[in-house]
Amino acid sequence: MITGSNAIGNKLSKQGKLTYKTFNPKENKETEWTFYEATSTEIDEAVALAVEAFKLYKDIPGVKKAVFLKAIADEIEALGDELIDTYCKESGLPQGRAIGERGRTMGQLRSFAALLEEGSWVEAVIEKGQPQREPMPKADIRKMLVPLGPVVVFGASNFPLAFSTAGGDTASALAAGCPVIVKSHPMHSGTGELVSQAIIKAAEKTGMPYGVFSNLNSSGIAVGQQLVKHPKVKAVGFTGSISGGTALYKLANERKEPIPVFAEMGSINPVVVLPSALEENGNSWATKYASSITLGAGQFCTNPGLLLGVKSPELDAFISTLSEEILKLEPSSMLHPNIYEKYQEGKKELSAQQGVTVMADYEKAVGENTGRPAILKVDGIDFLKNTKLHKEVFGPFSVIVCCDDAAQLESVLNELEGQLTGTVLGSENDLEQYDAVVEALKNRVGRILFNGVPTGVEVCSSMVHGGPFPASTDSRFTSVGTSAIKRWVRPVSFQDWPNKFLPQALQDANPLEIVRLEEGIYTK
Amino acid sequence: MITGSNAIGNKLSKQGKLTYKTFNPKENKETEWTFYEATSTEIDEAVALAVEAFKLYKDIPGVKKAVFLKAIADEIEALGDELIDTYCKESGLPQGRAIGERGRTMGQLRSFAALLEEGSWVEAVIEKGQPQREPMPKADIRKMLVPLGPVVVFGASNFPLAFSTAGGDTASALAAGCPVIVKSHPMHSGTGELVSQAIIKAAEKTGMPYGVFSNLNSSGIAVGQQLVKHPKVKAVGFTGSISGGTALYKLANERKEPIPVFAEMGSINPVVVLPSALEENGNSWATKYASSITLGAGQFCTNPGLLLGVKSPELDAFISTLSEEILKLEPSSMLHPNIYEKYQEGKKELSAQQGVTVMADYEKAVGENTGRPAILKVDGIDFLKNTKLHKEVFGPFSVIVCCDDAAQLESVLNELEGQLTGTVLGSENDLEQYDAVVEALKNRVGRILFNGVPTGVEVCSSMVHGGPFPASTDSRFTSVGTSAIKRWVRPVSFQDWPNKFLPQALQDANPLEIVRLEEGIYTK
Repeated sequence: MITGSNAIGNKLSKQGKLTYKTFNPKENKETEWTFYEATSTEIDEAVALAVEAFKLYKDIPGVKKAVFLKAIADEIEALGDELIDTYCKESGLPQGRAIGERGRTMGQLRSFAALLEEGSWVEAVIEKGQPQREPMPKADIRKMLVPLGPVVVFGASNFPLAFSTAGGDTASALAAGCPVIVKSHPMHSGTGELVSQAIIKAAEKTGMPYGVFSNLNSSGIAVGQQLVKHPKVKAVGFTGSISGGTALYKLANERKEPIPVFAEMGSINPVVVLPSALEENGNSWATKYASSITLGAGQFCTNPGLLLGVKSPELDAFISTLSEEILKLEPSSMLHPNIYEKYQEGKKELSAQQGVTVMADYEKAVGENTGRPAILKVDGIDFLKNTKLHKEVFGPFSVIVCCDDAAQLESVLNELEGQLTGTVLGSENDLEQYDAVVEALKNRVGRILFNGVPTGVEVCSSMVHGGPFPASTDSRFTSVGTSAIKRWVRPVSFQDWPNKFLPQALQDANPLEIVRLEEGIYTK
Repeated sequence: MITGSNAIGNKLSKQGKLTYKTFNPKENKETEWTFYEATSTEIDEAVALAVEAFKLYKDIPGVKKAVFLKAIADEIEALGDELIDTYCKESGLPQGRAIGERGRTMGQLRSFAALLEEGSWVEAVIEKGQPQREPMPKADIRKMLVPLGPVVVFGASNFPLAFSTAGGDTASALAAGCPVIVKSHPMHSGTGELVSQAIIKAAEKTGMPYGVFSNLNSSGIAVGQQLVKHPKVKAVGFTGSISGGTALYKLANERKEPIPVFAEMGSINPVVVLPSALEENGNSWATKYASSITLGAGQFCTNPGLLLGVKSPELDAFISTLSEEILKLEPSSMLHPNIYEKYQEGKKELSAQQGVTVMADYEKAVGENTGRPAILKVDGIDFLKNTKLHKEVFGPFSVIVCCDDAAQLESVLNELEGQLTGTVLGSENDLEQYDAVVEALKNRVGRILFNGVPTGVEVCSSMVHGGPFPASTDSRFTSVGTSAIKRWVRPVSFQDWPNKFLPQALQDANPLEIVRLEEGIYTK
């Protein structure tokens, strides 16, 4: 049941006077629930509980944390239709998407549980002492990853489940051994409360320390700011806009003790369309990209917002087909009136830029808050002169850049900001012939694809969902896949530490049976 | 031969008008050489060359980069006595230290060469496609670490070889595939020029791209600032003071595209002396710590600047012995008059704090710029009230905190800033009895030692030389040991990329024969 309360540890709490409501964009009206913003006292209480919980939680064996994560997945499933209905009401997204995203969320939790059960993720390295070494004896030194401390996770607007309350950030931080305080996203606080109840139930059932998880409501920025500035908070996870992510990143760097902020801030995900792709499969790629651009009303970080090619009759034909195909698809409701408004503004702004031609803009009647797909076209020379055209327009929207030649295409890519993904459509011959273009693209992205669409991010250990700034604030980490756990840990060396007082991962007998680097050799 | 020039790529260059000299602290006079500060144009030229070099260098196979690194070590050795003499003149450090540090520097280069020859450091992960998977096919996804781009390295005052021109930062960045621009340390620019000549000779002999390395002189902060702000520079390595490191970190975060700054900013390296250590080996620990505190005139980042214990007659005896022993050791010259002056000021400031007793301060006649060792004592209650006492006094100096009980000791540790190291002296019984104290210490450090001294940092793969802020700006990385290479890379995923166009590390046949995580299993 949705109460509108915060969860401070396992306790429901609504001490504040500020309230807000979530919104059903499809019906264009507020939902029935009233949410209570967390007060300054409630925030401090949640952090204090997390600090206490950390002392115990960090040392709970991985296999027990795995039981906790799996229990969260089970409890989310047990929420049944109430969760799916709330999700749909608060997001305007269809039921199929809700069920799919719930599956992804449970899958993520279970994949981190599997990672903990296997155990090698702590990167244990062992180099024993050599007391006889000349001219100096060598100490026994062993290292492994240990958790940072309490982590703050900001819910994302566009993934009410998979990147929010029990999403990838929370799952990876809990897996790492860090208590989590969620700053619930104001657009889906009801969904968030249900999921937080599932987490708390799972924590109680599996004997996790009180305060290992808290969930705080807020409609503005004050709660998030107080959390990021709190001296006892040790890291932050965020998925959202460049302005939001950059603001938190700055705040965290201005602290007396700066802390890492892992902000995944979206991207325009350049797609380079090379000649063979146009000659051999132009129509088929146009159809696939019409779908990819409009998937989920274009509200994905990996939405292809920029297509690039060298001018040719085939490129023109591709643009025409894409523009026709995208108008055949039924537009859908966006997540919130605010997001819809921003989409409208962004589309208008980019359409008005020098040299831009609007190739498609859905004109038929649509429901409330529905994002009308659009395709814009611009010459390479105009794109190079105008960085406004690099801007992400969050929605079913893409700009096609028509370059004079490969050199101009390379220049355009070199001028782009960091991106989550980059895609090359073409043949293997193209890869050879356009080597410099491909290298320029590779240098700007966290994931590079050949002959595919960037939407659809597989949750696996080889995934990089991140990239050079501003795709993310730290290109050395990913927010999707099991490696996401590495954001919440740091290495510690133990020198000449007595064997029985070492963490199990570093003990001589390798009781956890994990893969370790021992004297330079990977061994189990 | 020392020319006083900058090295812009392989070319000697002294276009500027600003000059400066290095200083022989032992003889208290300037050295014979004149150094030319890099101009703004020279800086831009060095970066432009690094950008071009990166395009080629990043793809040079690891085994060839290893040849380059080993050649640097050989060329440093070939500098012979000129290097050792210059080192001693510019640092005031004895010849034995110079030879030892040269060995360490060559050893570091060779250990990164071995890492590249082995090759598994790129963390290759392979998850093949599953076209038949339901409900959605799974793409082929593979990831590995790739270099960030041009790196700026700041030479450190206290390690003219091992943490400067061809030190750990340079060696690890070159190993990662990043061109390096060194901002030479103004206290030992002659040593720096000789080493930079060795690097350039090695680059030429082994066919490395022009501009893979440059060396820039400067006596002030302008050259370093311009380098850190340069949009084409992708990361920074620094070892030095908290004020210097923090300033660079801020500068890098204020860029349009923020970049990582790995600043290792020193530490007071707390040592917790538990009862058994005092009862059983009090005198022996006092003697060892007198040596550790004064080693290299106390000019090590891992110098034990803070000792802590619970009040007892044995602790008093330990303090007395330590204070006596430290006065028996011959004081030595500090690196530079500026460092000597700062040491004098710091010692004076801390000695004047409320509740502080000076237990030892060397009073006999000493040479110029010689750091007189000192031991201070203060009660836990006074230490808790006064964060000035947390300050690192760079030199042969330590403060001993006498706590009322274990709880106060724990409080003191909890209030400390992040540290490179923490040490526990005691028995295994003490570890059990003082569990909370040990946990508090562990939570604040990058390396924890049992019954040892923190000075002496082994170069190996299990070493963590780093720690929570302000010990370093990024506790997730180390600046010593082979893992230091991880600072200069980021992961990239390749999705459905044709096998023959993949980097060798990710190709099906595993031509490099490296350890990879394939479908969740570590395999070769």
